[in-house]
Order: sequence, then C-alpha cells, then structure tokens
Amino acid sequence: MAVTEPTADLLQRAQALRQAAARLALLADGDRAAAVEAMAAGLERQRDRILAANQADMDAAAADGLGQALLARLRLDAGKLEGAIAAVRQVAALPDPVGQRLLHVELAEALRLERVSVPLGVLGVIFEARPDAVIQIASLAIRSGNGAMLKGGREATRSCRAIIDALRDGLAGTAVADDCLVLLTGREESLAMLRLDGLVDLIIPRGSNSFVRFIQDNTRIPVLGHADGICHLYVDARVNVAEAVEIAIDSKTDYPAACNAIETLLLHRDSARAFLAAALPVFADKGVELRGDAAACALGVARAASEDDWGAEYADRILAVKLVADMDEALAHIRRYGSRHTDVICSSDTAAGERFLASVDSAGVYHNCSSRFADGFRYGFGAEVGISTQTLPPRGPVGLEGLVTYRYRLRGDGQTVEAVTSGRIGFIHRQLPLA
Amino acid sequence: MAVTEPTADLLQRAQALRQAAARLALLADGDRAAAVEAMAAGLERQRDRILAANQADMDAAAADGLGQALLARLRLDAGKLEGAIAAVRQVAALPDPVGQRLLHVELAEALRLERVSVPLGVLGVIFEARPDAVIQIASLAIRSGNGAMLKGGREATRSCRAIIDALRDGLAGTAVADDCLVLLTGREESLAMLRLDGLVDLIIPRGSNSFVRFIQDNTRIPVLGHADGICHLYVDARVNVAEAVEIAIDSKTDYPAACNAIETLLLHRDSARAFLAAALPVFADKGVELRGDAAACALGVARAASEDDWGAEYADRILAVKLVADMDEALAHIRRYGSRHTDVICSSDTAAGERFLASVDSAGVYHNCSSRFADGFRYGFGAEVGISTQTLPPRGPVGLEGLVTYRYRLRGDGQTVEAVTSGRIGFIHRQLPLA
Repeated sequence: MAVTEPTADLLQRAQALRQAAARLALLADGDRAAAVEAMAAGLERQRDRILAANQADMDAAAADGLGQALLARLRLDAGKLEGAIAAVRQVAALPDPVGQRLLHVELAEALRLERVSVPLGVLGVIFEARPDAVIQIASLAIRSGNGAMLKGGREATRSCRAIIDALRDGLAGTAVADDCLVLLTGREESLAMLRLDGLVDLIIPRGSNSFVRFIQDNTRIPVLGHADGICHLYVDARVNVAEAVEIAIDSKTDYPAACNAIETLLLHRDSARAFLAAALPVFADKGVELRGDAAACALGVARAASEDDWGAEYADRILAVKLVADMDEALAHIRRYGSRHTDVICSSDTAAGERFLASVDSAGVYHNCSSRFADGFRYGFGAEVGISTQTLPPRGPVGLEGLVTYRYRLRGDGQTVEAVTSGRIGFIHRQLPLA
Repeated sequence: MAVTEPTADLLQRAQALRQAAARLALLADGDRAAAVEAMAAGLERQRDRILAANQADMDAAAADGLGQALLARLRLDAGKLEGAIAAVRQVAALPDPVGQRLLHVELAEALRLERVSVPLGVLGVIFEARPDAVIQIASLAIRSGNGAMLKGGREATRSCRAIIDALRDGLAGTAVADDCLVLLTGREESLAMLRLDGLVDLIIPRGSNSFVRFIQDNTRIPVLGHADGICHLYVDARVNVAEAVEIAIDSKTDYPAACNAIETLLLHRDSARAFLAAALPVFADKGVELRGDAAACALGVARAASEDDWGAEYADRILAVKLVADMDEALAHIRRYGSRHTDVICSSDTAAGERFLASVDSAGVYHNCSSRFADGFRYGFGAEVGISTQTLPPRGPVGLEGLVTYRYRLRGDGQTVEAVTSGRIGFIHRQLPLA
C-alpha cells in the first residue's frame, strides 16, 4: 500500500463534503433519524441492483483467484443485506448522541458556560472487502450528524457503488444532502485520505490487523480501532473449575476469529492440574490445539509453546497455556504481552477478582464471565463503530458516542477579563442544572 | 531538533516508571492528595536550593546570550515559586478525577458492567525553559494517579533537577513512590521519549507553537495541546458598539501573547463604520496596529493587510481587520483560517448569536464576551493541563479530567455468550444507579 498526496480533485471533494457535513450538523434529531430510515428504504428499493453488483464483484474476485476468507467477507447475499437493512433501522431508533449538555456553569453574573456534544465533522472510513461495513458506518455517521468519506477495496467496487447509490437515493427528499456520503473509487485516490488532516476528523479502518496497523502508522488523523486483540484468561488458585472451563471454552471457541477471543490461558499452579484435567478433553473435543510451557506440558498439554506464542493473535482454534506462581506473575505477563483489549480472571475469591479488575490496564477487565462479551451490542450500545484499544477515550466497544465530541459555548452580556482582574465582576462558578 | 531511538537505559527507566505508576494508580484519593500536599512541603523546604539553581541557570543563559523572552520564561524568583507552591496545594484540594463510575448496567442476570475513570498511566512532559511548568504538571500527574517523565530544556537543567529533587523528597514517607517522577536530562536522551509508544500514554508539550507542532509531527503518542491560536471576533450587523469595542480591546490587549487573544476582527459592513469610528482611537491608545482589507482601510484602518495576515498568530499588539457582507462570509473565513481554538460573536440579535454558537466548529464559541475567558481556571476547573484544539476530547481548556481515561469492568458468575445465543440467558440491559 502507498499513501499518495491528495489530488486537487480529492481536496475539492473533501472540502465540499466538509461543508455538507457542517449543514448536517445543524439538523434536529428527528431530521437525522428520518434520513437514516430513508436510507434503509433506499437500500430496500435497490436490493436487486445491490445483489447483482455484489455477484459481479464475486465473479471477478473468483476469476482473480481471491482467497476463500476474502471471498466470504466480500459476499453480500440476500440474508446479509436483509440483516444490514434491519441494523440501519435500529440505528435510526437509537437515542441522539448530539446536543447533550454535559456541563453548565455560571462563571460570573450572567456569564454562562455550557459543554455540549456535537458531531465530529467528517469520518474517513477505509475498509477491505466487506461491503456491508459501508451500510453500517454510513448509517452511524448520518445518525450522529457526521459526513463520511468511504474508501473500499478494489474487489468491492461494484458493490460499494451500488450501496452508496442506494443510500444517496434514500437521502433524496430528506433534510440530509446526499453530498454527505462520498465514495472514493479508483486507484488514483489510493490512501490519500490519510493526508486530509483538517478535513477528515476520524479514520475508521475495517480490515485485518496488518491493515489497521498500516493505517495507524500512516496518518496524523486520529484512528478509531485496534490492531491486535491478544486477550488473556487467568485461572486463579481458588476457582470453580467447571465454570472456569466453560468460560475458557466460550472465550476461545465461540468465534475464534474475533478480536475478543482469548489467545492465552494463564493457570495458577495450585489449580492448574484440576483445571487441565477437566479442560483437556473438552478442548480436544472442540478441536482446539493447546501450546504449553514446560509446566503445562507436564500436566498434559501435548505441544510446546515457543516465545512467539505469547504474543500471537491466532484468530484460530489455538490457545497458548502457561502456568504462573501467583497473580503477580499473571499480571506481569498480561502487561508484557497483552494488547489492552479484554482480559478475564476466573476466581471464587472476591478480593482476588477485585484486585485483578483494579490492576489490569485493558479496555475491558472481567471477573467470571466470557471475554466474548466485549462488544457494543452486548454492552447495550445498540450499534458498534468498533473496539478501541487506545488509552484515551473513546475506549473499548464504541457506540454512537464515539462519533461525537464536545464544544464549549459561553454566553455573556459584555464581560471582559479586565473587569474580573480589576474586581468589577467576580467569578462565582455556580453549577446550573444540565436539563 | 532530532528524535532518536530510545537507549536501553531509557527503555529500562520507562518500564520502571510504568510499574511505579501502576502501583500509584491503585492508591486511594486521600493518599494521592496527601502526597501532593507533601510535594508542596518539599518545595518549601528546598526553596533556597531551587532559587539558587535557577539563578545559576539564569547566569549561564545570560552568558550564552539567550534572548530576553526566553530568559523571562526561565526565571523563577521567590514570588513565582511561592505562587507555584500555592498552586500545588490547590491541586491537592481538587476533587478526585479517578474512580468515578460513568456507566452502570446489568447486561444479563447477575452480569454487571461498569465504566470507571482510571489514570492514563504515564505522562510525558516536554517543555522549553519554564521550570515552573515542572511543578504544575508533576502535581497534576500525581493527583490524577499518573507517573510523569519530564524533559526540560538544556537551559533549565539545574532548576529542573532542584525542583524534581524537592518534589521527590516531598514524596518520601508518603504512599506514593518517588519513582513516579522521572527527570530526563542530558542530550543523549534528546526527544527519544516521543518513541516510547506503549510506555508513555500522553505527551504534554509546553513551549512555542513551532515546538508543539514539531512534537505533534514526530510521535504516535497522543499529544495534548495546540500549535496555533488564531481566534476571531465577529462584530455582527446589529450590535452594541460600545460593548463590542470593550470586548475587542480586552480580547486583543489583555495579554496579547496568549493563545486565546484574538488575531482577526471580522466586521459586518453595516456596523463596521460605527464600530471603527469608536474603536480606532482606543486601539491607537492601546498601541494596537491594525491591518485591514481594502474596505477596512477605506474606513480608516491605516495599514493594508496581505493574504498572510489572515493566517497569522501575531502574539503581539497587531490585529487584522476584514469587512464581510454577512455572517456566512464570516463563518467561511473562520472555517478557512481559524485554528478551532476560540471564536467570538458580538451581536444584540439573539438568533444571530445562537446561529454563530451552533455553526462555528471551535473548542470554544462565545457570544458577547471576551475570548480571554478560554482558560481552565476561568472555566472553574481549578487547574489547567493545557488547551486542546483537537477535534476529539479532551478539547478546549483541559483540567484534571484530561489526565484520566476509563475502563470497562464486567462482573459475572459464569456467563458465556453461548448461553445467550442458545437462549439459556437473555440480555436485559437494565440501568443501575451510578452511586
């Protein structure tokens, strides 16, 4: 991949998009919700065109010899499209993230400060294959008052074009201008979007880990997402073994390719024998290959782990297993090898659970439940933009609230700082009601 | 300036700091507040040493021929130190930003999610001259449960060393390890801190605009701050001229070198004549040089502005003046040349004021008051880390809350996602009380 400088044409399109987004940001909640509903209707009207375009992309991709995994992600059949349209309607029904008053203070007599949530502006969305991601992100963007510039993989060009045409067709007649959704196609624009500092406010990459890392390394625009999902499950000394085995199996096998699946099992040496005795047959039954350190192998793990295993995101039915002397060793291992995504402790000792929850510096830290709960829908956010492993917010599963920022508004009747300095007016900093 | 790769020694120090910070993050509010109080006491005990060290830095800087502006910033006299110590005590007394529960939901029976504010981890502070910045940031860091790695300019080496020694001396006997404050000195470490991704969570630069921009351009770690402060004052068609003149004068002259001083005056053509008639003598009296477009010059502005003036941060008693046909033209000008810091409208038309507040995409947007109110103390935050012009939060003047992030904690009793999928348990997403 290469990042080129934006062409004059791209700059002009980005500026036009920014202006359209500025108008969108001023619309009322109802107008934005209705526009997202209309986008769903637009997709329904053009269902056949979209499916045909995707079939054409699939045929071309098969002829080009694309791998099965990529083909599976590229595929948009009637069922997937139906599900995507239903999700758009759910996004329309979500509570408005914009216009929330987060702070309200009277600084001095008749000088009132408020902090209000506002749209970010323009989202830059870059994805490999998966044309359904266009539908999801476009609806989240419009719902939250943001314009979106979307760039899909070359293999999905026909699908993306048909989807965007349908979404823009849906917007016709609503308060939202169809200029708020821009699709970049063609090689010439490449990844020049990454250079649109000041015109694009947030980059949302959707694709493989290496793809996301490449994006993070090649832009100054904030990136929402994560490269790695190296999640751990620590089985403490005092533990309900049957429950811990169930949680371990779910965390690994419910969907091994997911970022919130565990990659490493850390076993306290006092419970490791009992845990492995119960777990080994179940892992074998589920087709999970274990790779253990020497102590784990001595307890029946068949294959030896190498140093590389501790940092691997297998995204497959493989699990590294290591014995630890105590929780401190588990914490140190997670600090060293983890990706600050989601880490779990199984323990029947409440104090140990609380210590783990307080000590692990990941976006999600769980006690006695599966790592697979790390998900915006499961958290109750209604829709998910992605999961962020950055330290700064938004962090963890990010819903609509990750697509807004805030602004301070100050209303006065002529106040100057000189009047404060000279003592003619004084600060009072009185909290006012938010609602 | 050059950014070198971290040496093995720096990496080791950064890892040790990270571990010390992890322990600090677990301390209770009272322990952190007491530690900050003790830091103030440490500064008091070593007052004479600090002042002597600063005098030695000043003498060396004068001998090296440093400019007056830099010398003024380097200087730490008894009064400045007294003020800095009082500010440390104020930071100790601020409400705890850590451990606030921001979300609390029962996802399924006995499966409870909470979002809790936690320290960022380690702050990387890089500053030119100003040794008092060390005191301020170190106290904010410890109060919010963060470690800090500090790197001062070479000219302030003795001052910084004496200050850090005093702060660490203050920490002795408190619950906070003195390892939580690390001072980098010497050329060999240069700006290698910018490469400590994963070990440093936030970079806070303090210095000139070009210094901040260099930092922003040379690190993947998030940077809190802003390069430019190009603030505008728009005087609307319907306006209380006397009030608008007062606000303009205050916004420009209260402290011209501040980032929240205005650099450009946008005048609606219907009120420009009356405004300038009243304002020109006052600006002249205050020693402010005006640079106008042709229409402003026709109304008495003596000097013509060039294209460069619209994008200039003068940080001086100079103000660009431009006439606009309507608010749209003012908004377009701000969108094009502003730095999204703070912009002001003076208008006696409430609807116009609200339209400006809704339309300008800056961290602060004000109606009928001075741009100089953009400041953490004036906003009532008690202390200020800096002002951010980024789109994403934290934005605007940032208090202690900019030094924390959040983490999701999920507590269950054996829940798996498979149990949800198979219908054995169901999501309820019941909101629980925050307190």
